[in-house]
Amino acid sequence: MTVVAISKPGGPRVLKPEQRDVPRPGEGEILIRVRAAGVNRPDVQQRKGLYPPPPGASDLPGLEVAGEVAAIGAGVKRWNGGDQVCALTAGGGYAEYVVVHESHALPMPAGFTFTEAAALPENYFTVWHNVFERGGLKAGETLLVHGGSSGIGTTAIQLASAFGARVIATAGSPDKCAACLKLGADRAVNYKEEDFVAAVKDATAGDGANVILDMVGGDYVVRNYRAAAVEGRIVQIATQMGAVASTDFAKLMVKRLTHTGSTLRPRSVAVKGEIAAALEANVWPLLATRRVAPVLDMIYPLTEAWRAHERMEEGDHIGKIMLDVG
Amino acid sequence: MTVVAISKPGGPRVLKPEQRDVPRPGEGEILIRVRAAGVNRPDVQQRKGLYPPPPGASDLPGLEVAGEVAAIGAGVKRWNGGDQVCALTAGGGYAEYVVVHESHALPMPAGFTFTEAAALPENYFTVWHNVFERGGLKAGETLLVHGGSSGIGTTAIQLASAFGARVIATAGSPDKCAACLKLGADRAVNYKEEDFVAAVKDATAGDGANVILDMVGGDYVVRNYRAAAVEGRIVQIATQMGAVASTDFAKLMVKRLTHTGSTLRPRSVAVKGEIAAALEANVWPLLATRRVAPVLDMIYPLTEAWRAHERMEEGDHIGKIMLDVG
Repeated sequence: MTVVAISKPGGPRVLKPEQRDVPRPGEGEILIRVRAAGVNRPDVQQRKGLYPPPPGASDLPGLEVAGEVAAIGAGVKRWNGGDQVCALTAGGGYAEYVVVHESHALPMPAGFTFTEAAALPENYFTVWHNVFERGGLKAGETLLVHGGSSGIGTTAIQLASAFGARVIATAGSPDKCAACLKLGADRAVNYKEEDFVAAVKDATAGDGANVILDMVGGDYVVRNYRAAAVEGRIVQIATQMGAVASTDFAKLMVKRLTHTGSTLRPRSVAVKGEIAAALEANVWPLLATRRVAPVLDMIYPLTEAWRAHERMEEGDHIGKIMLDVG
Repeated sequence: MTVVAISKPGGPRVLKPEQRDVPRPGEGEILIRVRAAGVNRPDVQQRKGLYPPPPGASDLPGLEVAGEVAAIGAGVKRWNGGDQVCALTAGGGYAEYVVVHESHALPMPAGFTFTEAAALPENYFTVWHNVFERGGLKAGETLLVHGGSSGIGTTAIQLASAFGARVIATAGSPDKCAACLKLGADRAVNYKEEDFVAAVKDATAGDGANVILDMVGGDYVVRNYRAAAVEGRIVQIATQMGAVASTDFAKLMVKRLTHTGSTLRPRSVAVKGEIAAALEANVWPLLATRRVAPVLDMIYPLTEAWRAHERMEEGDHIGKIMLDVG
C-alpha cells in the first residue's frame, strides 16, 4: 500500500510516499481501506520529531480517517466488510489502509462525504471530552474558545452553540472572526486588535466565561484566569505558546476556578471507546441533520501531504485540512 | 462586652482589648455567649492589614467560636437559649458575644470542652469542603497534605485517615513529623531534609498522590504537579510562599490533573450552611466517639490574644492555638 512517512525529522518536505505492507487486524480490530484522512497539529509536531508516537503505535502520522471496512479481526461484533466508517487512529492515518479498534470507529453520518467524515474524529473526540465531559459545559453557560477558526475551534463553537451555550471565540483576522460568527459564536474577538479578557467581561456583564478551552498556554494562562467566571473551568488541550507559564493562584482560589486538561492520544482503548459511544449517542444525531458539520479548508492528495503541512504551519486556514486517499 | 480589636495594622501588640456594645441577632441569627475562640492564619493577615473583612462583616478578628446561645433572632428554628454550640463566624470571634447565622452553628460534640469545640469550625469546614467535596478524596486513595502539623493539616490527616485514605504529610521538624504519624499519617516528610516529590513517589510505588491539599504555593505548585497521580486533584487553600508562581501546564495535561482551590470566608450564608449540614451528617459522629478530635497547641486568655498571634507567627505550634474567653 502507499503511505506517507516521516523520512527524517524536519520541514514539510520530509513527508515522503513509501510502499508498505497492509497491516492485519488483531482481535477486536478492523482494517479500514482509507478514503480520506485528517491533518492535525500533532502530526506537524511528530514530523518535527517533537512528539514521538506512543509505544506500539504506527510510526506514520495521521490520527483520523474515513473509509470502508476491508477486513475484521477475531471477535469483532459491530462491523462487517464494506461498512462505511470514520475512526480515531493511534497514528497511521496517512496510508491506504489502517487498523483501529472496532470501538474507535463510528458510522459515517448519512449524506457525508469521506472527506467530511474523516474531519470528525480527532476534533469531535477532543471537544466532547474536554468541553462537555471534563469542563462540564451546560446550556445557558458561556464558553470562551481560543483558536476559534481551527478545527478544534470550529467544532467547539458548533457543539457548544447546538447544546445551548453562549460562545465567545478568539481568532487572528477579520475573516477568521467572521467565520466564527457564521458558525454560531455570539462574539468573535480578533486577539491582534482587542484584549480578550476585556471582551469577555464586556460580553458577559462582568461575569466572565464558565468554561475556557485553551490550546495557547503561555501568557494566556493568567489571562484565562482573569476572563473566567466564579467556579469557571479552564481546560488546557495544548500549549502552543509555551507550557511553562507564570500565573496567579490567588485568583484561582478567590474565583474557585478549576484548571484541568488532557491529551487524547495516550488514553486507553477503553476510554476512547467510551468517548466514541458518548459521541454517537449525543452528537451523531446532530450530524445526521447537519445541525453541526465539519468546516473544510483545503483537500490535498495523500502523496502531497507536505503541502497540507505547509498550509497548517502558515496558519491561514479556517477549519480542517484534509488528505484525499482515493 | 470585652473584645479584642485591631487598633491599627501592625504586629501582634496592635491587638488591644476594648469595650463594645453586645450585637443583636437579626432574622435567622443567634447571639452566642463566647467561651472559647480559635486563632487562624487569616486573623494574622487581617491584623497586618492584608486581609480586610468582607463588606458587612465585623471589623474584629476571629472566625470560630464555641459557647452558649444567649439570644435568638426572628425565625430561628433550631436553637434555644442555653444550647451549647460551636460556630463559624464571619469575623468577630475575639469577643464575649458574637452573632452568627443559625445554620453556621453546630451542636457541641458530647464530652467536648468549649476550647475543643471552638477549634473545630474553621478547619473542619475548610478540610471537608476542599479535600472531600472539591478534591473528591475517596477511600483507598492517597492524600498529600502540606503543613501537616497545622490546624488544617492535623484535621486533614485525621479525617482522610478516618475515611479510609492513605495520608502523606509534610512538616518542618522531627517533632512535627512525629505528631503527623501519631494522628494517622502513613508517612511524614520533613521538608527541610527530604524532597516531598521523591518521598511521595516512593510511598506510592511511583503512582503519586490522588489529592494534594496545599497552602504553600510558590515553588510547591510545580512540585505538586510532579507529586500528583494521573487524574490527581490539587486543592489550593492558601499561597503562603507566593500566589504568583510558574508551573508546567504540559504536566497538567499529560497527567490530566485538576488544580482548583477556594477561600471559605466570602462564601454565601447558604453554602456555609450546606457545608455545616454535611459535616454534621458525616463527621460529627466521628467526633462523638473521638475517632477524630482537634489537636490543641496553646490556650491564651482573650485579652492576651497578641501572645497567640506571636506564637502562630513563630511557627513552632502543633495544632490549634486558642483563646479562652471565660
